[in-house]
Amino acid sequence: MSSGVEAMVRDGDQRAASSAPTARVAMVGGGQLARMTHQAAIDYGIELHVLAQSTADSAVSAGARYTLGRADDAGLLRRLASDADVTTFDHELVPLDELRAMASEGCAIRPRADALVLGCDKLFAREAVSGLGDHSVPVPAFVPVAGPADVAAFAERHGWPVVLKARHGGYDGRGVVIAHDAAAVERVLSTERGGDGPQWVVEEHLDIAAEFAVLVARSPSGYTATYPPIGTLQVEGICRELTIPADLPEEVVQQAATWARSILEGVDATGIVAVEYFVTDDGRLLLNEFALRPHNSGHITLEACTTSQFHQHLRAVLDWPLGATGLLRPAATVNLIADAATTELASRLPLALAVPDVHVHLYQKAPRPGRKVGHVTALADSVPEALERARTAADRFFG
Amino acid sequence: MSSGVEAMVRDGDQRAASSAPTARVAMVGGGQLARMTHQAAIDYGIELHVLAQSTADSAVSAGARYTLGRADDAGLLRRLASDADVTTFDHELVPLDELRAMASEGCAIRPRADALVLGCDKLFAREAVSGLGDHSVPVPAFVPVAGPADVAAFAERHGWPVVLKARHGGYDGRGVVIAHDAAAVERVLSTERGGDGPQWVVEEHLDIAAEFAVLVARSPSGYTATYPPIGTLQVEGICRELTIPADLPEEVVQQAATWARSILEGVDATGIVAVEYFVTDDGRLLLNEFALRPHNSGHITLEACTTSQFHQHLRAVLDWPLGATGLLRPAATVNLIADAATTELASRLPLALAVPDVHVHLYQKAPRPGRKVGHVTALADSVPEALERARTAADRFFG
Repeated sequence: MSSGVEAMVRDGDQRAASSAPTARVAMVGGGQLARMTHQAAIDYGIELHVLAQSTADSAVSAGARYTLGRADDAGLLRRLASDADVTTFDHELVPLDELRAMASEGCAIRPRADALVLGCDKLFAREAVSGLGDHSVPVPAFVPVAGPADVAAFAERHGWPVVLKARHGGYDGRGVVIAHDAAAVERVLSTERGGDGPQWVVEEHLDIAAEFAVLVARSPSGYTATYPPIGTLQVEGICRELTIPADLPEEVVQQAATWARSILEGVDATGIVAVEYFVTDDGRLLLNEFALRPHNSGHITLEACTTSQFHQHLRAVLDWPLGATGLLRPAATVNLIADAATTELASRLPLALAVPDVHVHLYQKAPRPGRKVGHVTALADSVPEALERARTAADRFFG
Repeated sequence: MSSGVEAMVRDGDQRAASSAPTARVAMVGGGQLARMTHQAAIDYGIELHVLAQSTADSAVSAGARYTLGRADDAGLLRRLASDADVTTFDHELVPLDELRAMASEGCAIRPRADALVLGCDKLFAREAVSGLGDHSVPVPAFVPVAGPADVAAFAERHGWPVVLKARHGGYDGRGVVIAHDAAAVERVLSTERGGDGPQWVVEEHLDIAAEFAVLVARSPSGYTATYPPIGTLQVEGICRELTIPADLPEEVVQQAATWARSILEGVDATGIVAVEYFVTDDGRLLLNEFALRPHNSGHITLEACTTSQFHQHLRAVLDWPLGATGLLRPAATVNLIADAATTELASRLPLALAVPDVHVHLYQKAPRPGRKVGHVTALADSVPEALERARTAADRFFG
């Protein structure tokens, strides 16, 4: 049998592919969001090119084309964007002024800098959505913090504890501190953040009954597609679990989605946007924050919805028709968050896969305590059933 | 905003990934099956390394690690296998004797050569499954062809036309000829095929009522997972459309699945195996052929079933627990087959995506008439509804 293989070589596989007008998308950032966007890009024959920090980045491990460099390297960003039809993002740590300049030179930057800022600058976002007069969207009470006296005055009105949030760059609980007294405030504010103007915002401490995210995709042509509401369970600022559909009154969901679409239209956002909301114990619906990119909460859409957030983001930034967002079955996702004992996940994957009917996604990231290194999703007849199954599988990676 | 980005660089993304015990799978072949296996491998953090013929190969375009070379290069195969935990295949054009030798040296070749031969050698496969005495599985009447006289004698018994099938290497209608008379037989047999012994098989011409495939995954530990039956519509030997579940009596499905599992066990096959069946107009269930790898018919499992055939193949060859094979919703897949007018597909993708609720997979292969260059799947409340939607989207790539 070893003879004759040459003659059987498949006709033509050696010919070069034609220079088809494949869509080229540049993505700033090479983390797990870029990794899963790469998987979606393969379906559509899109060439995704990521700006990564290291060859160990999650998207690079998955085989995405990459350039190594810093997201604030203006020359690099320009070269990346000039080789692409559209430039988009897997994180918010981007130089908005450079992006504005690039857009004015004709680069398709999606979302645009004036929309991205909603996800980059917590103070800007709070002021923008609460300062719309009759169109204002409720947010937690807040003021910018120039110094400890601002916090003291705020606590006078709203009581202790208060929540201090870094204006820029916080994520997964970093940059968010619950301060119980003036001494704690002093300690937080003595941290050097850099940048002009107030670098912290102080907010009322809320008794939270529920948190959820509304994912909306919006295209340059103005079409939107809204996903069913996704319940999020946060522990110490890190999202641990997701459920879809979130268990919320229909009018709450409709209100949250209407606000989200209205704000996206207001800033002419494009791509997937996650808008996170609180429902407080006293029944208030408050907008919390924005992510103008695929978002952790949207990982559940990979299996639960007709069009995943990653496919949808690509369609939206390319101004292609948006996909259906319908739910296939109730689902739950449990994030895999490394702890101090986690050295690797791969060897435990078969144990997790022994739980019937779960979907495991590993990001190939070096585990460090508190770092999201993967997630598990289960579909079932009900959310509690899905959640139990996803938790069972996720637990097998640890302990 | 362009200042301060450095300070906001995410903690630790620049550290190298740990040397985790990631599973390494080598796949011989870099076509669309390897491409979609790569997408599944990303979910599991598996490193897939393909043996490709060209950098234009479909899996290479998707970012899979690759080595360029020929599947019958014994030295190359050994190096590939020695760097991997398991070696598997995206086509059957492989040197079985070399693989046997490698297995005896300790390489994990899955499926093993003595199982792979079922998919490589149509004569062997016919003789193997029809020669099991009480355990024989019915196949079309056939004889090996040493020369035209064998065909004439066969036609004497079974009537004209007859079907001539190349023993090795046929696919997508190539290597299959319906011969209506002795002159046609002479023309076919004058084609040089190479190799020892009979290079053609002659079979009865069947009036086919239905064709379907049974996909079974089998692991080295002997576990199997069987998918719902997949209806296949073939036109001129090329699979055009798939439906799931196939519209067949339950006893036919059960019989076909039982035969398939029994044969897989008999040859100790591992990985995904597609077993294709005919149902004739006169009600016979006949086994047609085997593919010991992910198979075109299984593309429909990407969206329609809990575990796709690509995830399942990886789990099976790695001896991991097999995934659930349940159907999420009725579905249909339409293959995108290039015609003489097809120059590229990418520019028409947005038109196809305007059909609500379809999933498009483009393989980034140079289009040539008759070549499969992508597929479209739709899920719906019924198979006919799904088929109509998938056809509508697929049509938008052509004409």
